[in-house]
Amino acid sequence: MGNAEATRERILAAAMAEFSAYGVAGARVDRIAKAAQCNKNLIYIYFDNKETLFTTVLSKNLLRVYEEQVFTPDDLPGYAARIFDFAMANPDLMRLMAWSSLEQSVQTPPARGAARDSKVVELAKGQAAGEIGTAFPPDFLLTVIMTLATAWTAASPFGPSLAPKSAEHPDELRKNVAAAVAAIVSTKNETG
Amino acid sequence: MGNAEATRERILAAAMAEFSAYGVAGARVDRIAKAAQCNKNLIYIYFDNKETLFTTVLSKNLLRVYEEQVFTPDDLPGYAARIFDFAMANPDLMRLMAWSSLEQSVQTPPARGAARDSKVVELAKGQAAGEIGTAFPPDFLLTVIMTLATAWTAASPFGPSLAPKSAEHPDELRKNVAAAVAAIVSTKNETG
Repeated sequence: MGNAEATRERILAAAMAEFSAYGVAGARVDRIAKAAQCNKNLIYIYFDNKETLFTTVLSKNLLRVYEEQVFTPDDLPGYAARIFDFAMANPDLMRLMAWSSLEQSVQTPPARGAARDSKVVELAKGQAAGEIGTAFPPDFLLTVIMTLATAWTAASPFGPSLAPKSAEHPDELRKNVAAAVAAIVSTKNETG
Repeated sequence: MGNAEATRERILAAAMAEFSAYGVAGARVDRIAKAAQCNKNLIYIYFDNKETLFTTVLSKNLLRVYEEQVFTPDDLPGYAARIFDFAMANPDLMRLMAWSSLEQSVQTPPARGAARDSKVVELAKGQAAGEIGTAFPPDFLLTVIMTLATAWTAASPFGPSLAPKSAEHPDELRKNVAAAVAAIVSTKNETG
């Protein structure tokens, strides 16, 4: 890794910590520069402004999720359990996603929309093939799965900030998340 | 209403708009003062600081929810449908709750924890009476209900910021939220 690239990586790591803690409005570029041991001006040279730096950090980390977490429409409870584990192991990224959905100064990375769309298509195919219950539209199922799997992180206002002890038993939670998803995706259309 | 009280109400209304748009870190007291047509110093006299003003606004609005939205453990799909309607009709409050769970400078109002605890107790009673399925613990059920009912608001990173068109048909969404909750709360314990 070249010197410039190493500095860039240090900036991104420091920015991840700063943004997840304080959001975009609360983050301070001088704190990021100090943590990354670089000149503050260098951050503006590399990333233009605070908002672009935030989007770069979020996109980079989400790309990791898409690569690591394979979507398995033939095993949605299993997928929900893996997303649950990932979300619990990566509270900083969950906070980053939550800030992103609130802060009007930053856009949702286009790759997120594309990743979502492709999952909805796969769910529709699974329904057409009779592998997934048809009581609910595919985009509804995806929102349910992602929301339930991440409900015990800072991404949810009903998560740890409201009920600090709710995630004390992650093994039981994971099992329940998977079972709740199983109950919903196995629901058949009453008229179908 | 006295003059001082009217001013206080104007400040709280302006603060609601400012905080829901920008969060605590991004909110500016001078903008709140301008919108409330009062002196900035008056805000500090009434509310000490920005964080206390935020907590006051959030508590006041949540109190309204507790008063208006009756918890019906004997009709959980209906409760979820009503919370869905309320959440869709009050995007500012949903944003306020989401900021609250992320911003480390503010505390969750104690009344929120108390309201949650009393609902968990009611759910446990419903399970003991055989009215609610026992496959899932009562606190898990409550998180599922609240998370699903608010998944199409800014309170969720999988809501409108990710899928802008997902809430285009609220009648269908409300019906699906209620049906998903029904599927989960009717699930019996396999060994029970």
